Amino acid sequence: MIDRDIIQEGNDVLFLLDTKRTFLIKIKKGEKLHTHKGFIQNEDLIGKKYGEKVLSSLGIEFVALKPTIYDYIKKARRSTQILYPKDIALIVTYSNIGPGSRVVEAGTGSGALTCALAHYVKPNGRVYSYEVRGEFLTKARKNLKKANVSEYVELKNEDITSGISESGVDAVILDLATPWLVIERAYEALRGSGCIVSFSPTIEQVVKTVIELENNEFVGIVTIESIMRKMKIKEGATRPETLMRGHSGYITYARKAFKKNQAMI
Amino acid sequence: MIDRDIIQEGNDVLFLLDTKRTFLIKIKKGEKLHTHKGFIQNEDLIGKKYGEKVLSSLGIEFVALKPTIYDYIKKARRSTQILYPKDIALIVTYSNIGPGSRVVEAGTGSGALTCALAHYVKPNGRVYSYEVRGEFLTKARKNLKKANVSEYVELKNEDITSGISESGVDAVILDLATPWLVIERAYEALRGSGCIVSFSPTIEQVVKTVIELENNEFVGIVTIESIMRKMKIKEGATRPETLMRGHSGYITYARKAFKKNQAMI
Amino acid sequence: MIDRDIIQEGNDVLFLLDTKRTFLIKIKKGEKLHTHKGFIQNEDLIGKKYGEKVLSSLGIEFVALKPTIYDYIKKARRSTQILYPKDIALIVTYSNIGPGSRVVEAGTGSGALTCALAHYVKPNGRVYSYEVRGEFLTKARKNLKKANVSEYVELKNEDITSGISESGVDAVILDLATPWLVIERAYEALRGSGCIVSFSPTIEQVVKTVIELENNEFVGIVTIESIMRKMKIKEGATRPETLMRGHSGYITYARKAFKKNQAMI
Amino acid sequence: MIDRDIIQEGNDVLFLLDTKRTFLIKIKKGEKLHTHKGFIQNEDLIGKKYGEKVLSSLGIEFVALKPTIYDYIKKARRSTQILYPKDIALIVTYSNIGPGSRVVEAGTGSGALTCALAHYVKPNGRVYSYEVRGEFLTKARKNLKKANVSEYVELKNEDITSGISESGVDAVILDLATPWLVIERAYEALRGSGCIVSFSPTIEQVVKTVIELENNEFVGIVTIESIMRKMKIKEGATRPETLMRGHSGYITYARKAFKKNQAMI
Repeated sequence: MIDRDIIQEGNDVLFLLDTKRTFLIKIKKGEKLHTHKGFIQNEDLIGKKYGEKVLSSLGIEFVALKPTIYDYIKKARRSTQILYPKDIALIVTYSNIGPGSRVVEAGTGSGALTCALAHYVKPNGRVYSYEVRGEFLTKARKNLKKANVSEYVELKNEDITSGISESGVDAVILDLATPWLVIERAYEALRGSGCIVSFSPTIEQVVKTVIELENNEFVGIVTIESIMRKMKIKEGATRPETLMRGHSGYITYARKAFKKNQAMI
Repeated sequence: MIDRDIIQEGNDVLFLLDTKRTFLIKIKKGEKLHTHKGFIQNEDLIGKKYGEKVLSSLGIEFVALKPTIYDYIKKARRSTQILYPKDIALIVTYSNIGPGSRVVEAGTGSGALTCALAHYVKPNGRVYSYEVRGEFLTKARKNLKKANVSEYVELKNEDITSGISESGVDAVILDLATPWLVIERAYEALRGSGCIVSFSPTIEQVVKTVIELENNEFVGIVTIESIMRKMKIKEGATRPETLMRGHSGYITYARKAFKKNQAMI
Repeated sequence: MIDRDIIQEGNDVLFLLDTKRTFLIKIKKGEKLHTHKGFIQNEDLIGKKYGEKVLSSLGIEFVALKPTIYDYIKKARRSTQILYPKDIALIVTYSNIGPGSRVVEAGTGSGALTCALAHYVKPNGRVYSYEVRGEFLTKARKNLKKANVSEYVELKNEDITSGISESGVDAVILDLATPWLVIERAYEALRGSGCIVSFSPTIEQVVKTVIELENNEFVGIVTIESIMRKMKIKEGATRPETLMRGHSGYITYARKAFKKNQAMI
Repeated sequence: MIDRDIIQEGNDVLFLLDTKRTFLIKIKKGEKLHTHKGFIQNEDLIGKKYGEKVLSSLGIEFVALKPTIYDYIKKARRSTQILYPKDIALIVTYSNIGPGSRVVEAGTGSGALTCALAHYVKPNGRVYSYEVRGEFLTKARKNLKKANVSEYVELKNEDITSGISESGVDAVILDLATPWLVIERAYEALRGSGCIVSFSPTIEQVVKTVIELENNEFVGIVTIESIMRKMKIKEGATRPETLMRGHSGYITYARKAFKKNQAMI
């Protein structure tokens, strides 16, 4: 039986130097991780426990951590702006997904949000992720594989504004430039009472999306913005950090109600 | 086979009047939901689909939604301040839990966070939730049952500062007045590389907790505060809402590294 | 010679019970200030120093403070939403006014911002304040008189969108529903290099105003929002306050450059 | 008579290229302003109006603005962190100063806040600014001279924790590492009802200062933090800016009440 606390060849390790400097690799015999603080022989890790400290060739201490799903996301190869954990956390929350959920997502982009969705719906749920640009799908496929969640995701090289082939899904999650063009399709794909969540950087995108949600009789429509502040905690010198990310985007969510002419008691 | 989209006797329904007014009940034949907008006969719902609209005795429209895990949390009977979805979302994110995780939590309080943890670790994971005050456990037990997640939770009427009986857990999550008193116990209970997340309203609690995390050689220590802003979206009158919750608490997270004398390559 | 530290008949006093409960009156012999903590005989104050403590008839301590300009503003009779000190402070800052400045303002509303502008331009500057609604002017006139700044203000019962009769002014300050309709008039009224500052609650107002500023070749256009957070400072229990004002409005400022066809080296 | 709208030799000009790139110089015949967008002959400006546009040697347009007090502050030579307009605005507001006020300030630092205070108290008020480090005073003196406010300021190379020689002042304003050591001195220097305002980056400084204010029977003690968000306003792409300054410091203000044993009705 495999002890998942023991590092094996082929396992992923996040080497942490400090809070801001980390390195994510797959352990391979004969390979070295090169850093500006010296190199680490991969081989030395095999048989050690996750959480142990290792010394680089320059005698600098690194901690060998087991990557979290957000470590994979942060290290994902990207060609687009990716979502931050603060936004992903709220998108996952408001979409109400969990183990077993069936979710439609668009666009896939670099697959960052896809990784998180897959993490929460596994092992029996499924993410259907639409992306019209083929080159993104290639990148997303690699990132999903690295994060070990490929099997829970179906990548679709299709334009979601032309249609969604799934039906009765638990949630539709949108992170694309024109979410308002997808609302009607999303309505059809969702189960009654299902959740739609849309992420947009600009306020005009939000206004258009909310109008379209209202036109389609979605209910419980709410738009929020999450602002995250890092604190510098040090006895006698505690304060919020000087620089912060001022804005990433707005999150709008709503739920599907059947239209009057469809079903009314 | 049961169609989970069709409302049956014994099912939970969230009746939504508007974004701010909702009513959560379990459907029972012969019972009525009484609201200031008229009553609704439970019986009329049976056989209908989640997402359908119903009219109250006064002809007011309600939508019959399937409750999300956060609906259960918001409707939980409480005797303490409960966590907000914005904080629960980040606690779940930073703890890196998912389907199958084993999590220690303290204190249980009204069981709000416990419900969310159970939702994400089910069906094979488990939440061990410590609460020293018996009257809270009684309330938490009811709230967990209502949210249909009791089977994934072990409620423990014990003082977590005296010890944690589980070991090798994936995450320890603290929402209590003196988290710094639990750090050493949490360290022992965690797997190498496991996550600890602590929520505290005051800055002095955070400073004490971070010092204790450092003393126990936790790594990757970060403290953040999440500020959530609701937006009022209306074409021609879009703006952030006038009143907002200014503060709930700080979230500190860190990961367990083995101490030097324990295991060093 | 009058010692302005000694309270005389006819002087204003702000009675402070605590940070949130204060009472502003003009001292008149024979009158009483009635509060839920007992009454205070005005007469007893005469000859005392500002800053002294007095006891009410119920033996409760009040501090007799000299009102600040913001105390007058907070106590102004209002029929409209008034600006907060946080916004007034930035409007004053960005307008670059100071002793001697000539300023155009619209609309007067209850005169809250007018009081602050008058305070900073006195004794040789002047505020020209436009208000189309006569009933507001009556109220504003009273508030300015109470704050002892009437002599620095010219109240004008005119519609600023129809024209500004002053020219060569140092600053134009707008707090009205349709600021974009005034930009061209403001341009004509301003000195070269002069400042325009506009306050608006909604984002659509801001977008329209900025477009109009750009069309009129204003330069250095910047829009900001000021968020103010009160802190609860108590050793061992320090934290931001739970409730905060989430939004009052956006402040846009810009400076007048001459148009190309007007004057170019 | 001098027309203050016409640029003369010896006048200051702020050349604005765009919102983020400006150049502040004193006009001298025979000199050039060199920028990466070409040079501008100072001489060409003489006789022109503030607000006119000029072309550099490379044909790039600059606007010749009259510097505001905040332009001088932003361009001040500094050796320390200087205050931002958002904080200066609130410090000026809460200190209740205006034309004619007498103000004690410490420490002078680079003189940024001193410039603003002088701007608002002129022409009859006075700023007494304490700074124990001589090299800072030299720099501050230059910055005050550049901003044309030297005559309203008395720079004092003294340690304010050893004593304040002024008395009956309207306000005491503190921006130093250990404000709590000055509270008792400030109390003695202030008029009854006078204002004290302290700016500190860390929460521990604030807690110590508030305790000392309470010990000295100051009243109306309030601590706030001002967070300023820049907006990117563009039709169809409106949003808060991505990066923002997350924290500069906390502002605490309070007012002097006489102590019980000093004067009680």
